[in-house]
Amino acid sequence: MCNIMLVVAYDGTEYCGWQIQKNATTIEQKIIEACQKLFSREIKLVGASRTDTGVHALGQIVLLKVDTTIPIHKIPYAINAYLPDDIVVRDAKIVTNNFHPRYNAKNKTYEYKIYNCNFPLPQYNRYAYFYHKTLDVDKMNEAAKGFIGKHDFKAFCSTGSSAKTTIREIYSCDVDIEDEMITIAINGNGFLYNMVRIIVGTLIEVGRGKMQPEDISDIIESLDRKRAGVTAPAKGLTLVKINYN
Amino acid sequence: MCNIMLVVAYDGTEYCGWQIQKNATTIEQKIIEACQKLFSREIKLVGASRTDTGVHALGQIVLLKVDTTIPIHKIPYAINAYLPDDIVVRDAKIVTNNFHPRYNAKNKTYEYKIYNCNFPLPQYNRYAYFYHKTLDVDKMNEAAKGFIGKHDFKAFCSTGSSAKTTIREIYSCDVDIEDEMITIAINGNGFLYNMVRIIVGTLIEVGRGKMQPEDISDIIESLDRKRAGVTAPAKGLTLVKINYN
Repeated sequence: MCNIMLVVAYDGTEYCGWQIQKNATTIEQKIIEACQKLFSREIKLVGASRTDTGVHALGQIVLLKVDTTIPIHKIPYAINAYLPDDIVVRDAKIVTNNFHPRYNAKNKTYEYKIYNCNFPLPQYNRYAYFYHKTLDVDKMNEAAKGFIGKHDFKAFCSTGSSAKTTIREIYSCDVDIEDEMITIAINGNGFLYNMVRIIVGTLIEVGRGKMQPEDISDIIESLDRKRAGVTAPAKGLTLVKINYN
Repeated sequence: MCNIMLVVAYDGTEYCGWQIQKNATTIEQKIIEACQKLFSREIKLVGASRTDTGVHALGQIVLLKVDTTIPIHKIPYAINAYLPDDIVVRDAKIVTNNFHPRYNAKNKTYEYKIYNCNFPLPQYNRYAYFYHKTLDVDKMNEAAKGFIGKHDFKAFCSTGSSAKTTIREIYSCDVDIEDEMITIAINGNGFLYNMVRIIVGTLIEVGRGKMQPEDISDIIESLDRKRAGVTAPAKGLTLVKINYN
């Protein structure tokens, strides 16, 4: 039996998120179907991150256990042959038997794109949230630093989460602008349900002047979801990279 | 009667190019339909560039002559209300009666994107040509300089062109790479049918080592379409900007 780690990129626009479910098309399901066609047997996968409907990935990590004689460097090409164009396996590596994509992840980086301009640009429709009101990016970046550290992020978690604890550690959170594209990059040891999108929604409030950078620590301490901003739309969010030891 | 210059951006993926035609959906047609709904009368447009099927634009220039009391700064919002998401009017200006988008254009800039990597990235599927073989970008950039100047570009024109002359002047042609994305930027006083895409196809031959940078002037002088490279796919091409005096 081979333990194979896949690096997968996808455009999440057309999918009901990563995790397999009844009556909805998901990315996990598409990869399982591709692998079942390729290997002619039942396949189960373990994904590192359960990305939501409409969320994209550059570096989702997936564990595939399968008995195969296909050389490891040919595995991505073989699986891609059975995948639609909006899901691509970009790398494959043999990993040890005890490797787990979720439990062994050291930290994850997500990026959120906001196209901040008077008019939308069709070229950005799929991967950025169009927001036309003026945003103070410096203030947003100042506020972003308030998320760094080990905190109980209950105020930044949507209901319906099955997480045992709402404590997470954020290592970095940066807000940059290039031309009219704002990028919010956040790295942490794990993220609660909708956490990045609620952080982004809160940073937008700061950018609008409706909240102040110094309010962030108060909102975190309140543990009150209602104190934080709205959940920003899924389309702007991309799972960029997952790091392992 | 108002003479209005529109700046239009579009994702050309779903359209049979700019120009209106029977039995096919085009961008010009969508804007005419939107304007006819908005102004409740027959509308004719003049576009600066007849972009091909699948080609995109950031700055297509369109002349609209119409009798309206809508303030000029509200015109883009009013037209966009009737347009699909993949076509956006981004600016509107009153221009003089004798303004012609095509005849008055001083120069145009096109960009062509090549994603040069072992595996495609779904996020680039719509706007870049995926090419997996190694390309020598320095050689491509050296070859690109061979296009600069006033030349008869008959060798770089597809059959079916209605142009009176095949002489054009290229002011700049640059090939750059950032991460795995190669950008070919070309500025000139006008372009023949498929000219940019044939130039790109030829530069790819140079990047592959099948042609040398010094071959470009010979190919131009030959006036022989068969000497140049293949026409690169439309999806990588974007009309970036049209400059006027």
